[in-house]
Amino acid sequence: MVPFGVWLLASLGAAVRPSSIDVSGDHLVQRLWPRPRHVEPLGLGPVAVDHERHQFQAVGCGSSPLAGCHVLSSAFKRYKVLFFPHHADLDSYSLLETGSNSSHLRARRRQLRDVSITKVQVEDLAAELSLGVDESYDLEVSEEGVVISSETTWGALRALESLSQLIDFNFTEESYFVESPCRIQDSPRFPHRGLLIDTARHFLTVPRLKRTITAMSFAKLNVLHWHLTEDESFSMPSRSHPELAEKGAWSATERYTWKDVKDVVDFAYLRGIRVIPEFDMPGHVSSWSKSHPELFDAACLARSRRLAFKPTQETFDFLEGLLREWTSGIFRDGYLHLGSDEVPMECWAHLEVTDERGRSVRGPHRLFSLFVGAIFQRAKKLNRQAIFWDEAFSSASLPEDAVIQVWRDKNLVRQVVNAGHRAVLSWGWYLDHLQEGWKGMYQNDPTSGVPNDQHHLVLGGEACMWGETVDGSDQGNTLWPRLAAVAERLWSRREVTLTAEAARPRLETFRCLLLQRGVEAAPVSGTGRSAPPGPGACTQRAGNWGLLA
Amino acid sequence: MVPFGVWLLASLGAAVRPSSIDVSGDHLVQRLWPRPRHVEPLGLGPVAVDHERHQFQAVGCGSSPLAGCHVLSSAFKRYKVLFFPHHADLDSYSLLETGSNSSHLRARRRQLRDVSITKVQVEDLAAELSLGVDESYDLEVSEEGVVISSETTWGALRALESLSQLIDFNFTEESYFVESPCRIQDSPRFPHRGLLIDTARHFLTVPRLKRTITAMSFAKLNVLHWHLTEDESFSMPSRSHPELAEKGAWSATERYTWKDVKDVVDFAYLRGIRVIPEFDMPGHVSSWSKSHPELFDAACLARSRRLAFKPTQETFDFLEGLLREWTSGIFRDGYLHLGSDEVPMECWAHLEVTDERGRSVRGPHRLFSLFVGAIFQRAKKLNRQAIFWDEAFSSASLPEDAVIQVWRDKNLVRQVVNAGHRAVLSWGWYLDHLQEGWKGMYQNDPTSGVPNDQHHLVLGGEACMWGETVDGSDQGNTLWPRLAAVAERLWSRREVTLTAEAARPRLETFRCLLLQRGVEAAPVSGTGRSAPPGPGACTQRAGNWGLLA
Repeated sequence: MVPFGVWLLASLGAAVRPSSIDVSGDHLVQRLWPRPRHVEPLGLGPVAVDHERHQFQAVGCGSSPLAGCHVLSSAFKRYKVLFFPHHADLDSYSLLETGSNSSHLRARRRQLRDVSITKVQVEDLAAELSLGVDESYDLEVSEEGVVISSETTWGALRALESLSQLIDFNFTEESYFVESPCRIQDSPRFPHRGLLIDTARHFLTVPRLKRTITAMSFAKLNVLHWHLTEDESFSMPSRSHPELAEKGAWSATERYTWKDVKDVVDFAYLRGIRVIPEFDMPGHVSSWSKSHPELFDAACLARSRRLAFKPTQETFDFLEGLLREWTSGIFRDGYLHLGSDEVPMECWAHLEVTDERGRSVRGPHRLFSLFVGAIFQRAKKLNRQAIFWDEAFSSASLPEDAVIQVWRDKNLVRQVVNAGHRAVLSWGWYLDHLQEGWKGMYQNDPTSGVPNDQHHLVLGGEACMWGETVDGSDQGNTLWPRLAAVAERLWSRREVTLTAEAARPRLETFRCLLLQRGVEAAPVSGTGRSAPPGPGACTQRAGNWGLLA
Repeated sequence: MVPFGVWLLASLGAAVRPSSIDVSGDHLVQRLWPRPRHVEPLGLGPVAVDHERHQFQAVGCGSSPLAGCHVLSSAFKRYKVLFFPHHADLDSYSLLETGSNSSHLRARRRQLRDVSITKVQVEDLAAELSLGVDESYDLEVSEEGVVISSETTWGALRALESLSQLIDFNFTEESYFVESPCRIQDSPRFPHRGLLIDTARHFLTVPRLKRTITAMSFAKLNVLHWHLTEDESFSMPSRSHPELAEKGAWSATERYTWKDVKDVVDFAYLRGIRVIPEFDMPGHVSSWSKSHPELFDAACLARSRRLAFKPTQETFDFLEGLLREWTSGIFRDGYLHLGSDEVPMECWAHLEVTDERGRSVRGPHRLFSLFVGAIFQRAKKLNRQAIFWDEAFSSASLPEDAVIQVWRDKNLVRQVVNAGHRAVLSWGWYLDHLQEGWKGMYQNDPTSGVPNDQHHLVLGGEACMWGETVDGSDQGNTLWPRLAAVAERLWSRREVTLTAEAARPRLETFRCLLLQRGVEAAPVSGTGRSAPPGPGACTQRAGNWGLLA
């Protein structure tokens, strides 16, 4: 049954097509990933978007030096290409005539009223990218144009992404359109929606990192957790201690320059993505020993290939100096990840050290607690809040404002927030577990089992892309599409994303969009890093000539 | 033993390092892929290349409208980034101060005399990209600057690529250098060095195609054989017959616009890569039947899922019209691939047609011969020479100027050239055969078994990347690094590339370079599309902390 009013509207519409009579908004929702909080059609479509005349307007940015205006102007350049992918400017000159029928097409297109302005109204153009910054937005598409309203620049970026996903292309008329006028009201469920990358088990080059960051922005992720140092290699530059990377890198070229790292951080910032570096310690630090054996107990160095820092004041001073250099020069975010996972306690079996008050400390667990507590305070001196893996919660006593990343056992989320800490979930989201498919990741809810009054302490989560078998050759198809499942779980309200099966067609559409944009997203039908099983569409469902496969 | 003169030179050098005393050129050759014909050190190094002051000069291009000048100016933009990857311009503004020690670094760098000009001298700036165009070049790097001399623009592009591979980066001084002054004299062994891509078993998007073309240029490949139409799908646009793609594509979005295809051709042209489209026929054409069943015999349509065109004059007229549209509007190359492989002869078991002279023709083999002969002549009317798969050679009689692509049996190369045809080798280079590693591909020589006086009829070869299990998610790591092995076989003289084992360290270096440039090249150690087996350097050889893996 279709209500009478709809047919009436339909009969009045200028360019009505069969699909326009869907008033539920499903035809719009089908195109969007992650799913917005509220999508409402405002009439019948389609609404043409004129790629030749289209312009962006940032209200209040005439000649403003505000940070947000720079971010918007950079975003406008990117989204022009994403709105109109068949008319991206070519790095070339035309070798043959452009063809004769474009005026004909233009005449056909002008039968529709068309949108040529996307207006962006941001309340607070100075709001900085940080944990909890307002990312909500309103997006209205009508024949008068597109209007984006948001509290901050970062919300406007999310709106531009949603708009880019709504714009469809008509191959016959070579024109762009949105299926119907509509309004979207949207905001994220969690403020911390991240991906961990590991550039130590394999080095990842700057072009690769930028491609990953770009793809993250398509899924509205907002944290890149950069696991920079490890047992295996050390590629992070230091001006005060260049020997760390000189001796610790995989090779003479698999290192970053200071500018490389800064470029990555700036590149992410412009896409609304915070970069949180992780300098894993006191374990996972063997590569440091190549240039700084004095950070380790001699007995540990002699006995073990997996080392742990000696928790002395000299070690803390050295580490604080490095963290100061890195945070003042490159990493602007208020948070810093300081590891604390899988410490090889055997390194400390016979160690005894003196703490800052001159007391003697011995025994692996006390030494671990000493280390974590001390490094937390050193980070605090640098105006950084520390995030730790959940071993620090289980084995050390920490101030409440330490953030705990849960990876070993999901039940720890409840315990962590019950102790007053804030939690980030990674359990269930290990993308290097290739056999774990997207559905389980989609259903993994960060607040399940957490009392309602403590939900605010669950900051969100991070998918983890550990690098043992991942480098620039396969990072893309190991990340995607499973990372998209995590991204929707973290952005969208529970009530609009109940089952994986209902999400599946939308995820397939998003996978097609990722391929269209050059992201190496594997088929939805497989597990991690699966090749397409046979000829097929980007949805890789049987269709068309699939029967020949 | 080191000759006396070398030590004398070394003691006179301003900034001599231990590696500079290698006068064999091996230290330079190690960095180059494919291996040049002749590499000669001209003294002791290093030669600094100043990224801040560096400029390109194209002699004779002051305000020239010559095609070659456009190509060079576009190449200069690309190679600036490839020469100085740690100083690529960022699409951003600086968020923090650039740091304080750059003047200090500059002072250190100025101790060396440095290169700030790359001068490009092209004899014939109007020479068009075509089969057999001169791609030779001379490249001389000295403290006075870099001089590239070539007959054509296309040779200059190859020289720029070689130069980009020679430039190294010093992380300590943050400066670029070439290991020693040197001269390279180079030219390709074969004029046709190609890759077949298949956008029909899976659609490949324009961003993906451009990435593939870019990577091809790094290996000095010069032909993209674009297998556009197939049983499974039809994504090629036609203005006269839009219904072909409207009905034949995998989905509403997995199609190209006219401008998309032109953009890809132009993009390839600027990188010195000819695009040869393949419209496979008379078999592999099932997708055409969705919009044009009249091209098929009714009995064939009814009986078979794998169809063959009916070889009638109406069919030829229809095909000629389409080929005219495509060649006049988009595909400028003098060659056109017209398939002819794996024709389902059963479709023609009971068919009888009339040829252009009114004679009745029946029997599958006669009908095949009729088809191939007629379509060859139609292509000729459009000023295009036709390339066919080797079935056309085995089963039909063809004019000598038809080019035959050999895929079923390598011995056919000898037979093909013995019959006076020109041959392109693809046997042994099927990249979709994942179990076939790079070594076998490297050793596969196009002229083996061919008498010397017929070598000139072997145009070269093409690696084939059939698309059954390949789409945008895994094309990169299925192509690379094996495609590089084929590229060196086709570019480099046999006498400098004897064994795969000798080439291996250079291939590993090239794989590292591909990763550095964002190409998804799989590890050299694996078969096709292998993931890295464990933590490691880009060479994926044990090293550093590999022992922890």
